[in-house]
Amino acid sequence: MTHYILGIDGGGTSCRAAVATPDGMVLGRGKSGAANILTDPNNAIISITEAAKAAYRDAGLDEAGVNSASAFLGLAGTNVGDLTRYVHDRLPFRHTDIDSDGLVALQGAIGDEDGAVAILGTGSIFMGRKDGTVRYIGGWGFTVGDLGGGARLGHALLQEALLAHDGVHPRSTVTDAVLDEFKGDPRSIVEFARLSKPGDFGRFAPLIFDHARRGDRQALAIVEAAAASVNEALDAIMKLAGAPRLCLLGGLAPLYPEWLSHGHRAILMEAEADALTGAVALAAKGYRERTGAAA
Amino acid sequence: MTHYILGIDGGGTSCRAAVATPDGMVLGRGKSGAANILTDPNNAIISITEAAKAAYRDAGLDEAGVNSASAFLGLAGTNVGDLTRYVHDRLPFRHTDIDSDGLVALQGAIGDEDGAVAILGTGSIFMGRKDGTVRYIGGWGFTVGDLGGGARLGHALLQEALLAHDGVHPRSTVTDAVLDEFKGDPRSIVEFARLSKPGDFGRFAPLIFDHARRGDRQALAIVEAAAASVNEALDAIMKLAGAPRLCLLGGLAPLYPEWLSHGHRAILMEAEADALTGAVALAAKGYRERTGAAA
Repeated sequence: MTHYILGIDGGGTSCRAAVATPDGMVLGRGKSGAANILTDPNNAIISITEAAKAAYRDAGLDEAGVNSASAFLGLAGTNVGDLTRYVHDRLPFRHTDIDSDGLVALQGAIGDEDGAVAILGTGSIFMGRKDGTVRYIGGWGFTVGDLGGGARLGHALLQEALLAHDGVHPRSTVTDAVLDEFKGDPRSIVEFARLSKPGDFGRFAPLIFDHARRGDRQALAIVEAAAASVNEALDAIMKLAGAPRLCLLGGLAPLYPEWLSHGHRAILMEAEADALTGAVALAAKGYRERTGAAA
Repeated sequence: MTHYILGIDGGGTSCRAAVATPDGMVLGRGKSGAANILTDPNNAIISITEAAKAAYRDAGLDEAGVNSASAFLGLAGTNVGDLTRYVHDRLPFRHTDIDSDGLVALQGAIGDEDGAVAILGTGSIFMGRKDGTVRYIGGWGFTVGDLGGGARLGHALLQEALLAHDGVHPRSTVTDAVLDEFKGDPRSIVEFARLSKPGDFGRFAPLIFDHARRGDRQALAIVEAAAASVNEALDAIMKLAGAPRLCLLGGLAPLYPEWLSHGHRAILMEAEADALTGAVALAAKGYRERTGAAA
């Protein structure tokens, strides 16, 4: 019987899967809904299984074959809480390895090399690999972490808009834009913030970078503070990385480089491949190690 | 029939009432539970009514008499949302005036004079009175405001502890104390933060001031940032105040003065009286104006 492997990249908005031969040649891909195991573990299980079956169908294989697959899953929400085991035991695959969505992104970005990766999206997390061991910095989420992520940038802008409204800080084009959006009523900003999830705050991030580039003082202050926190985290992660290679990933990756210190900019590189490719590579590696050990 | 007035000070943890003669002589006092109309308006109505009846009993009056009282209420949660009317229409008093808990605190602290008041507790709000008109700065709550309040200080400490754990910032005595409290597990800090209300974060504030006074670098950074935000807000509120008088109120009032700018420290004064006294004074003033107008 032919063995197949599955690479799965499960994030807060969607889950992607690829079925491949044991040596990593991708035969088909599938996609489904959110797979954050901390937010909703049961839904993550459904999304993961759906994406895997869709990949099998895309490859022209019987979707029932997922039961005999060796899968490597990179999932959001694995660093906090204890739900990994719960999800692991309820998935249909013959063999299941679960790690963070960050790890598969790192594998895709820098392959088997040493180096570092920063994921700068709604949140922020930093990973460094040295002699095969991966270390993490950040990624603690919006409430008390992720200082470089878009959610914290958006949050800082709303706060700045309230300070501008109160006359505590000067008004500027970007704070006026926010106050206009909320019809000049600070209570609407407070109410929005009370009901918002990190992604809702994060949608202001591109606006802030845009205004900062055009010299808006308040936007500059927000971006410079966020960039300072990213620079600090990069300083720390590069000490844990075995080689001076740095890859920025996530929605804010194209916006950050000009705000980073020269030392970090000098070692920036493009990602070799995406997180799904990284998941397939780790699935292939796991399969190889297990079958090699059994041989 | 004898008329009585009621002054009521309703906050997030308790509600206090005082019944008085129309000229403001207090006859009895009562206390009950929380009266934040934003958090729980129906419970606030119950607490307010209970405190009023308790004050009547304390004065040796029939508690049914609250129905004919003229009441002035300073309540938490009036600056955001639209629940003031809802609460107003469901209270048993003959006449009901509702304003913020801040206003009655200001009235208690500086009487009928012009000047400014800063309430520095779990949150932070600034009020200035000039020619009888009161203006507000801050008080927007923990999520996107209250930068000088204890909740934001505690929040900053938890964030600092995670940065210290990750090696992004140096460790210090105060971050070690937090990490010890959470058994060195950053995930416990994240989980605590996820479940915490502002008051839960705020309980770390005295610890931070204590360590800052002893020179702890990370505590100093947190206190100095908070004090900078308070100084900025005080700069703004003093421009709106008709006289150079400043009174600090709230749980952090004794801790802040040494961190404030010389200009603000020079005009600090002790509060003349508490918020309940302020509520009684405003109830007496309202009664006087209405009966004077009717005469």
